[in-house]
Amino acid sequence: MKSEIIVYTISDSLGGTSRKLLSAVSVQYPDLDFNNSYRFPFVNKEDELLGILKDALNDKAIVISTLVNAELAETARNFSQRTGLQYLDLLNPFFDLIRARTGKKPIEEPGIVHRLDKEYFNKIAAIEFAVKYDDGKNPHGFLESDVVLLGVSRTSKTPLSMYLANKGYKVSNLPLIPEVPLPQLLAQVDKKKIIGLTCHPDNLSRIRTSRLDSLGLNHASKYTDLEKIYGELEYAKQVFAQYDAYVIDVTDKSIEETSYLVEDYLKNLE
Amino acid sequence: MKSEIIVYTISDSLGGTSRKLLSAVSVQYPDLDFNNSYRFPFVNKEDELLGILKDALNDKAIVISTLVNAELAETARNFSQRTGLQYLDLLNPFFDLIRARTGKKPIEEPGIVHRLDKEYFNKIAAIEFAVKYDDGKNPHGFLESDVVLLGVSRTSKTPLSMYLANKGYKVSNLPLIPEVPLPQLLAQVDKKKIIGLTCHPDNLSRIRTSRLDSLGLNHASKYTDLEKIYGELEYAKQVFAQYDAYVIDVTDKSIEETSYLVEDYLKNLE
Repeated sequence: MKSEIIVYTISDSLGGTSRKLLSAVSVQYPDLDFNNSYRFPFVNKEDELLGILKDALNDKAIVISTLVNAELAETARNFSQRTGLQYLDLLNPFFDLIRARTGKKPIEEPGIVHRLDKEYFNKIAAIEFAVKYDDGKNPHGFLESDVVLLGVSRTSKTPLSMYLANKGYKVSNLPLIPEVPLPQLLAQVDKKKIIGLTCHPDNLSRIRTSRLDSLGLNHASKYTDLEKIYGELEYAKQVFAQYDAYVIDVTDKSIEETSYLVEDYLKNLE
Repeated sequence: MKSEIIVYTISDSLGGTSRKLLSAVSVQYPDLDFNNSYRFPFVNKEDELLGILKDALNDKAIVISTLVNAELAETARNFSQRTGLQYLDLLNPFFDLIRARTGKKPIEEPGIVHRLDKEYFNKIAAIEFAVKYDDGKNPHGFLESDVVLLGVSRTSKTPLSMYLANKGYKVSNLPLIPEVPLPQLLAQVDKKKIIGLTCHPDNLSRIRTSRLDSLGLNHASKYTDLEKIYGELEYAKQVFAQYDAYVIDVTDKSIEETSYLVEDYLKNLE
């Protein structure tokens, strides 16, 4: 059985930063179990905070805090020093560096929750855009897109589109199918915005096979046939050349990694 | 003009945790400009790291690191102590707490990039599911969903679906339109999985107006008419009652906040 580590994340907002750190840390300990960790968002009263810290002590938990309120953060720090609670403050060391340099203090307003600003609404609009123009549903979206993703089936166009949309990019995507002519509108798209996704044929076959499994279909299909896949990828290569597409090989890459490569490419265009 | 703070984020993986922290910190300083910050992912050689740290020193940058490699992290720490570089290590203090408690060391494998595990593929499948069953496109998705979102137009069904999908939930959503009968399949859905989204009529009118603006349409429309909106919301209320839906008021809530409330509700069902 795995040893258990209990982590409490405490925030006066949602605590997304702590959760992200916890996730990054937990993968470094495959033989420790972090599953009984607890999330405490919207903590904004001292007595509530002290109650959570006492529970943490009883649970022998590690506490990660992203409290922006200086008084609450100090309460937690004092409590931990007094009781020996394992306590990690993510924000204040950063605040201290900025104060040392500029003399400036944080505004201490809980973060994400009320940040319904222009950037936020752009992101929401980008997500709706990506859903609307997924899978070549409407080629008119190509002209308004920041990036148009092309690729054969199962090269991660949809999840990549959603991931980039979540960063505010307007993304459309088009599946490449040798039997289906390309929409004429594609020729009007700025070629720099066109990105081709490719993948090693063996991986593609494996991914398609497990896709059919999950759909409860059998494998005796052209869809997973290697020769057919070679043909599709060859066709994709021609399309990429024709449109001068920037090509990314997604083999063994996570969506996050591919998304980073797309962003990096787009930033270097500017 | 805003004072400028330059932040370098260094990681042997993608550096998503540092970026998230940087974003949480930067909103606390509305009059500081963090825009000239740099992201250095996939750093895995000492000379490369030292080059970046020297640049950081020249740029008077603050450096945030999520290096999992102990040698690289030590190199950075030593360099900073020697030169006075402002340096913040996010992972090692956490590693130290775990070592103090369990004696265990991290496996030091760069994180996210190669974590193409079951959880990851579930998330990808959930994103594809949410796109496929967005906007009531196919009511058959309701039966396979972890959660079915109902709401009138502009109650953030689509972005919320994508956000929850990114956390691995299978989500479908259905727009409530008084003139359109509900799909019969909805009656077969486990009522506990049905969540109704509502919003204050004034906010809804404002959101719809800016929506029409962004589409270049004028406002003399039933769509933004308050009386019409009251009628729609009244109808939604009846549907929520009929299906025993758990109702969330999204007025002034960010998608992240609503998503947290949905997750919290689903977890308490278990």
